Amino acid sequence: MKEILQKVREGKISLEEAEKKLKTMQIRELEDFAKMDIGRDVRTGVPEAVFAEGKEDQELIDIILGCADNGRIMVTRLDKERYQSIRESLEHLVMDGFKIEYNQKARILVVKNHEVEKMGKIGVITAGTSDIPVAEEARVVAEEAGSKVIAAYDVGVAGIHRLFSQIREMLEEDVKVFIVVAGMEGALPSVVAGLVDVPVIGVPTSVGYGVGEGGFAALNAMLQSCAPGIAVVNIDNGFGAGVFAATILKQVKS
Amino acid sequence: MKEILQKVREGKISLEEAEKKLKTMQIRELEDFAKMDIGRDVRTGVPEAVFAEGKEDQELIDIILGCADNGRIMVTRLDKERYQSIRESLEHLVMDGFKIEYNQKARILVVKNHEVEKMGKIGVITAGTSDIPVAEEARVVAEEAGSKVIAAYDVGVAGIHRLFSQIREMLEEDVKVFIVVAGMEGALPSVVAGLVDVPVIGVPTSVGYGVGEGGFAALNAMLQSCAPGIAVVNIDNGFGAGVFAATILKQVKS
Amino acid sequence: MKEILQKVREGKISLEEAEKKLKTMQIRELEDFAKMDIGRDVRTGVPEAVFAEGKEDQELIDIILGCADNGRIMVTRLDKERYQSIRESLEHLVMDGFKIEYNQKARILVVKNHEVEKMGKIGVITAGTSDIPVAEEARVVAEEAGSKVIAAYDVGVAGIHRLFSQIREMLEEDVKVFIVVAGMEGALPSVVAGLVDVPVIGVPTSVGYGVGEGGFAALNAMLQSCAPGIAVVNIDNGFGAGVFAATILKQVKS
Amino acid sequence: MKEILQKVREGKISLEEAEKKLKTMQIRELEDFAKMDIGRDVRTGVPEAVFAEGKEDQELIDIILGCADNGRIMVTRLDKERYQSIRESLEHLVMDGFKIEYNQKARILVVKNHEVEKMGKIGVITAGTSDIPVAEEARVVAEEAGSKVIAAYDVGVAGIHRLFSQIREMLEEDVKVFIVVAGMEGALPSVVAGLVDVPVIGVPTSVGYGVGEGGFAALNAMLQSCAPGIAVVNIDNGFGAGVFAATILKQVKS
Amino acid sequence: MKEILQKVREGKISLEEAEKKLKTMQIRELEDFAKMDIGRDVRTGVPEAVFAEGKEDQELIDIILGCADNGRIMVTRLDKERYQSIRESLEHLVMDGFKIEYNQKARILVVKNHEVEKMGKIGVITAGTSDIPVAEEARVVAEEAGSKVIAAYDVGVAGIHRLFSQIREMLEEDVKVFIVVAGMEGALPSVVAGLVDVPVIGVPTSVGYGVGEGGFAALNAMLQSCAPGIAVVNIDNGFGAGVFAATILKQVKS
Amino acid sequence: MKEILQKVREGKISLEEAEKKLKTMQIRELEDFAKMDIGRDVRTGVPEAVFAEGKEDQELIDIILGCADNGRIMVTRLDKERYQSIRESLEHLVMDGFKIEYNQKARILVVKNHEVEKMGKIGVITAGTSDIPVAEEARVVAEEAGSKVIAAYDVGVAGIHRLFSQIREMLEEDVKVFIVVAGMEGALPSVVAGLVDVPVIGVPTSVGYGVGEGGFAALNAMLQSCAPGIAVVNIDNGFGAGVFAATILKQVKS
Amino acid sequence: MKEILQKVREGKISLEEAEKKLKTMQIRELEDFAKMDIGRDVRTGVPEAVFAEGKEDQELIDIILGCADNGRIMVTRLDKERYQSIRESLEHLVMDGFKIEYNQKARILVVKNHEVEKMGKIGVITAGTSDIPVAEEARVVAEEAGSKVIAAYDVGVAGIHRLFSQIREMLEEDVKVFIVVAGMEGALPSVVAGLVDVPVIGVPTSVGYGVGEGGFAALNAMLQSCAPGIAVVNIDNGFGAGVFAATILKQVKS
Amino acid sequence: MKEILQKVREGKISLEEAEKKLKTMQIRELEDFAKMDIGRDVRTGVPEAVFAEGKEDQELIDIILGCADNGRIMVTRLDKERYQSIRESLEHLVMDGFKIEYNQKARILVVKNHEVEKMGKIGVITAGTSDIPVAEEARVVAEEAGSKVIAAYDVGVAGIHRLFSQIREMLEEDVKVFIVVAGMEGALPSVVAGLVDVPVIGVPTSVGYGVGEGGFAALNAMLQSCAPGIAVVNIDNGFGAGVFAATILKQVKS
Repeated sequence: MKEILQKVREGKISLEEAEKKLKTMQIRELEDFAKMDIGRDVRTGVPEAVFAEGKEDQELIDIILGCADNGRIMVTRLDKERYQSIRESLEHLVMDGFKIEYNQKARILVVKNHEVEKMGKIGVITAGTSDIPVAEEARVVAEEAGSKVIAAYDVGVAGIHRLFSQIREMLEEDVKVFIVVAGMEGALPSVVAGLVDVPVIGVPTSVGYGVGEGGFAALNAMLQSCAPGIAVVNIDNGFGAGVFAATILKQVKS
Repeated sequence: MKEILQKVREGKISLEEAEKKLKTMQIRELEDFAKMDIGRDVRTGVPEAVFAEGKEDQELIDIILGCADNGRIMVTRLDKERYQSIRESLEHLVMDGFKIEYNQKARILVVKNHEVEKMGKIGVITAGTSDIPVAEEARVVAEEAGSKVIAAYDVGVAGIHRLFSQIREMLEEDVKVFIVVAGMEGALPSVVAGLVDVPVIGVPTSVGYGVGEGGFAALNAMLQSCAPGIAVVNIDNGFGAGVFAATILKQVKS
Repeated sequence: MKEILQKVREGKISLEEAEKKLKTMQIRELEDFAKMDIGRDVRTGVPEAVFAEGKEDQELIDIILGCADNGRIMVTRLDKERYQSIRESLEHLVMDGFKIEYNQKARILVVKNHEVEKMGKIGVITAGTSDIPVAEEARVVAEEAGSKVIAAYDVGVAGIHRLFSQIREMLEEDVKVFIVVAGMEGALPSVVAGLVDVPVIGVPTSVGYGVGEGGFAALNAMLQSCAPGIAVVNIDNGFGAGVFAATILKQVKS
Repeated sequence: MKEILQKVREGKISLEEAEKKLKTMQIRELEDFAKMDIGRDVRTGVPEAVFAEGKEDQELIDIILGCADNGRIMVTRLDKERYQSIRESLEHLVMDGFKIEYNQKARILVVKNHEVEKMGKIGVITAGTSDIPVAEEARVVAEEAGSKVIAAYDVGVAGIHRLFSQIREMLEEDVKVFIVVAGMEGALPSVVAGLVDVPVIGVPTSVGYGVGEGGFAALNAMLQSCAPGIAVVNIDNGFGAGVFAATILKQVKS
Repeated sequence: MKEILQKVREGKISLEEAEKKLKTMQIRELEDFAKMDIGRDVRTGVPEAVFAEGKEDQELIDIILGCADNGRIMVTRLDKERYQSIRESLEHLVMDGFKIEYNQKARILVVKNHEVEKMGKIGVITAGTSDIPVAEEARVVAEEAGSKVIAAYDVGVAGIHRLFSQIREMLEEDVKVFIVVAGMEGALPSVVAGLVDVPVIGVPTSVGYGVGEGGFAALNAMLQSCAPGIAVVNIDNGFGAGVFAATILKQVKS
Repeated sequence: MKEILQKVREGKISLEEAEKKLKTMQIRELEDFAKMDIGRDVRTGVPEAVFAEGKEDQELIDIILGCADNGRIMVTRLDKERYQSIRESLEHLVMDGFKIEYNQKARILVVKNHEVEKMGKIGVITAGTSDIPVAEEARVVAEEAGSKVIAAYDVGVAGIHRLFSQIREMLEEDVKVFIVVAGMEGALPSVVAGLVDVPVIGVPTSVGYGVGEGGFAALNAMLQSCAPGIAVVNIDNGFGAGVFAATILKQVKS
Repeated sequence: MKEILQKVREGKISLEEAEKKLKTMQIRELEDFAKMDIGRDVRTGVPEAVFAEGKEDQELIDIILGCADNGRIMVTRLDKERYQSIRESLEHLVMDGFKIEYNQKARILVVKNHEVEKMGKIGVITAGTSDIPVAEEARVVAEEAGSKVIAAYDVGVAGIHRLFSQIREMLEEDVKVFIVVAGMEGALPSVVAGLVDVPVIGVPTSVGYGVGEGGFAALNAMLQSCAPGIAVVNIDNGFGAGVFAATILKQVKS
Repeated sequence: MKEILQKVREGKISLEEAEKKLKTMQIRELEDFAKMDIGRDVRTGVPEAVFAEGKEDQELIDIILGCADNGRIMVTRLDKERYQSIRESLEHLVMDGFKIEYNQKARILVVKNHEVEKMGKIGVITAGTSDIPVAEEARVVAEEAGSKVIAAYDVGVAGIHRLFSQIREMLEEDVKVFIVVAGMEGALPSVVAGLVDVPVIGVPTSVGYGVGEGGFAALNAMLQSCAPGIAVVNIDNGFGAGVFAATILKQVKS
């Protein structure tokens, strides 16, 4: 600003020009204030993510191509059939040096031209086999956001000895956050939180029937847990759990 | 019947008299059919039980005095204050040889002039201390219905090692049914059913707040348990759990 | 352990060897403790069960072939179409002496090379014809778990005389547990529990519409029953009811 | 109208007067149309009813005194304490020949200077003793609306033989409508409707706890009944049931 | 009975024979007692009804052919496609003098070889056009159960003048019961009950979206109506409303 | 009326004729009273709207052709496929000078032979892209009802700076009502109402999953907003929001 | 800004001074941007409002005294007892020329030293007498926000003719917005919206019992209304309805 | 172990003694395994916490005195009255060098004889003043668990500029976790998570009425947030949020 004012003093620029320059500068600052969230993705390291459901194939293709400039984009809730139908249209990205990775269980497509450095470890555990897709979503998202993940699936309270040894191993590996995915009665996060002293993120899944249909029994059990070190995300929200866990690890590193 | 007919043949009674006698007999049989449930309390050994809530003191006194002929009666959900206000009116029952036992935690009054023989063992477990009143209700009811009870309170999933040793001890004592009482997230019955091979009766309690208020989170978690050997009774229904457990033990004995 | 110590005393093994042997033994015991549930299926007699929903055909085939070594496996919630599509892949099991039984109503596939001895009797009753699939699931499971089953379907409160005669017959057959399956208003278990003095397991079904949709009206009616000898399982959970009933009968026998 | 026109023709009244007379007549007819419901209470025979809850004592007194001209008024949901506190203010009505009847169970005050003729019979049944207040409300209302009532309380499904004999007696007394009041699991109206061939009005009560709290389990069970001859009113709505039953009987008589 | 005794007296039959005869008679009476509901359909005039949903085509055909002896049977919730696929198998009933009537809107098939005499009138009203199928179900059922029906569809509160004239006409036709069918906000039965002095049966329909999805907004509005002459049946339960209305009219006639 | 009376006075018409004329006049007035809502569409400027769901193609065609006399009709919730299948049948309307406009996003078909004059401006905002169809429905309806609309989509709280600039622009354009459409957590209307001083109409959408499924989380958040200038319509009810906003603008103009 | 720059050019102020002045200006603008909502109350004319529930007496007194500088403040949900206990502490405001108005029904305290000019008319209608407090809250708030209010209470659908005449009168008085307050089945806003062509704001009240308890039946009925010109506020939210209605009228005037 | 074996080798202890010693050692290890959670409080630094509700005064006193040996104990949900009534009984702890701190807003009593070292910063924000008690509970718990806390209360979305400056300040203070407490529509955590790149813990409060009663609207809005960096705890669970946040900070430090 001083620079502009100096030029005014020296008569190098007209008053009008100075006013315009100052206003532009001001507006930019104004926008910076309001846009406090711009650059957020860059700082947190979570690549942009697109929810595929409710969007048409061409829309998805356009978004992917448009965002590839950033170097990385994730498409979540993308069924295999849809992936296959848009895959060809992304071919030239491969020629541009992009990697295209599709995880069928997690239903996530990752398009990227570089890997992020991975720091810190997250333990991802599921109670049953039906909870794996949600866990895989969390795993892929957390990895793309710069975390290492150790996974142990199908170790619910029905076979409590397997659970014990898995948790012990993870703690020995210096896991700093647990993501515990469970449907049905949702008891697993409580049991895990009773055994460890690191944050436990409970992810209820819509696995269940009768009173458990939709995952509400699991959700409520996790929210109502008598073990205090638990926080919870929405039903089937593997994406949110992955981002939240990675965000915790960012704090550890920073 | 033959007897009556014989008398008819022999002319010892008139046709009218015979018809009346046969009809009476028939009506009694008819009533027996409909009254199939009469005598049920006697057979099952569950003493008559009166729900104190919603009844006035004098009503309770009348019922207790009226039923004392059967030798035993239980009054459930009877607060200490109410017990104290009706106690005096029951005094002469003591002189008639009745014992008057009031369990404040269980809020049950038992009036009886004899003990039932106790056979078979039930294990009663609670997750927290707040679940104890419901567990005590179950214990007293089960004992009055002729079962022995071993209780272990406040052994929830938060301190899983205590739970393990308690269950082990109970199994060694040849417990044949477990009553597992839990509020909050209601995970305990699932964990217990994953460890034992005898019937587990889950009793959700209205202990909890927020999403757990009223006990619904616990109830749903128990119904939705991924361990198959569990059946559930209504929230806070210690009475029902005690009767159900005792009914199972009756089958074992018979 | 004494044996090892004796060898130490006698100098037959080195201290190091002894320490290693003792540690291994100890670890095994440790694992036994944690694995207290291992062998549970064997003891209870309930064959391993696989929930078909949410698993792909090949997964199912692999699980069945993998578990057949145990001699018995059940696949539940298996539609006829899926059964037919995996049937061929199980053919060589037949040559190995296995029986392959598919119950279309119950949607259960049983693969086994031996029968279990059946002891004790369960009565299975349904209110309507639509409740039969859930009842059949309970029946098959209970039978495979070693119980005899007497079934009476479509005997709801609308035609109360049929109900009376069926229950009377079952009691005469020395039925020790009732499984009562009902959708709609779920009144049947209350009525049955008012007539008999053995445990009644209520199974609500998702038969109903409007306020009864999903089976919640029936579930709540059973939990709220004014007859005390009832415990309840999740909506449509014929499997759980069958296991629970069989578990009760195990106690009777043991 | 012709009369007026005749007078116009004869010049007995001015055009202006005629127009005014016709307009007034017309407005009255217009109002009659809109006020089609005026006189409804008179025709149906249901005396005016005031809901005491939410009104202050003086408001109630004013309403009662104001409506006494009609000869009859009911005040519902009036606790004993409130009745006692307003009783004195109604004293002079007694001197004017009014009867003041307060039913404590039903919590209804009836003020009237004549009785209605009673025609037709309603059977009122309750499952438990706690349902009696709602049943009494229905009874008093139905009687004031001109019906005879036969009541049988505490005859729930737990003691089904008593129920049978009560219903048989009522049918022999030519009862034309049943009001069946039940809380808890609300099974009684289904059982009654399975036995009789007259309309059954189900009244759920807020008697229950856990899943039955508030009366919703009973309400849903009644709505979802598999017996078709049932219609239902709101929880604890004894008033509505009494009016509805009396309204049916009016049709019978008319 | 006297007859048998007389024969005993006269020695015409042996004592054994008499005893057997009397016992048979007694058992029949016993059964009559329990079967108090047998013959109910005959007395009420409601023909047997079969719920098509959840039954296979062949099952339906068997039931229809089996019941045709009674002269009349209704199949409800039968889609047009299913009707067409079973129609041929019912052909020979036509040759036996049966009429086969299918109402596509109501989704009811009626098979009968005689008409019932129709007495008394029911008014059936719907708020919108989407409520018509439920209303038609009620109409067909009520007619088959012996009532005359006057219907007025799509006369909801949005066009209140049409409603007024329809109700006025129905009252002039001496309608004795109203069936008012409405989804969405379910206000119509309240408005009608505010205008007439005959019983109003509210039938909520599952027409609606958002908070009204499933018909619960309409159901609750009807139960909570401030007009007292209303009783309610389950959502979409046109069948129940038709039977209930016809049952009321039976009382009027008898 | 005076005119008729004058003729009576003058003997120009018979008394009978006069009576008939007066009655007819009176009935017309009577009907006017009851039909107070007739002509409502005309006055408010909202063209007649037909809900396509639940109606068959031919029904829709008949309604459109029948109403086209009014010059304008809207068909809402009309999928593209259905539009295409009925399009041909509307062809001759084009020849009659009608415009046929189909908005695929909004799923609305407008048939009209004139445009309404547009006065006043409405701002329509959505939180995400999935909320656009509901917003478009609101936009088309509001425009057809005579309002101008400025739309800004996908400006949710996640990118709060874009929201700020959009609202600022709209306010500068003199927008007098905001329609804010949001699913998920439904926070946007609260934020907008905290920034502007014109009425905000919240429209929750069924966009969401888990606890947000069906749009109830969004609906409740809007109703429970701590910003007071908000009113809410049903989930996905773009139509209602459009009409309501236009109705407000009518008041502004009048 | 130009002014400052001019001074820079003319050397009247130093560069540092100029920079400081510009920055201050800029920050003020920045804050204006973020504080876009400051001054909102002033513009809209809604005086500041304080929710009394959850605040202690002294807190309320401090807030009132602190805000009185603005000339006007409202305290809502203030019970009579609390008003009386804080009244004295506000005495000196009276000496300072403030008026202190307490409306007991509305439970609102208004403290003000001037009246707002009132423009435009709102019609406030209630279905029953129990809805009046909520309506009064709306009325007082709307009046303080600068609107005139015409009120008509207890004109529900049960007495539809009174409703008609009230609405007609209000329309003749040029009412531009209706606030319709109703509990129970909440039908009134639908009926009103079917009769008028101005915006209708539905306010459900927590008046009701059983299924209507808490006001949810009324809320859902209003949201689900088949009349399109309705928007709804939270249960018992008279305050919100008053502000919303006044905000609409502001648009009319501006 | 080697030591024991050495003694065996050397004959210093008998085989029996050795076996016993080894077994004891083994059992201790076994218990260590199961007691994996023992020492958890020590490691995590969260002092033992007792929930005061549901416990009697004497129970609380005994627990506090019993646990004081550990040097620190918290009692949560302890009303001022109860604090005052037990305060005297804790007096001698003061003489023993303990500090007794009671926070009335947070309703927490802390008894401790040393302070924990505080590392890392948590930002605690509330939307309204009524949310402060829950926020204070979180603050006290987090501080006792070794975190520093910066609090900013009453900065909800209604005054968004204050929120912006508070968050900016907190970020500048290097806050690593946010606890955002909100009732009503629960929008605040979404807005905060849209602005920052550290973990946000949403705490819904039971502040609200109508659809927001009990805090469910806020809870669901937080779970359903479209901003991904949010995890949620139970309604009013300030304790859980404080522990969870502190547990995150432990990871940062370790």
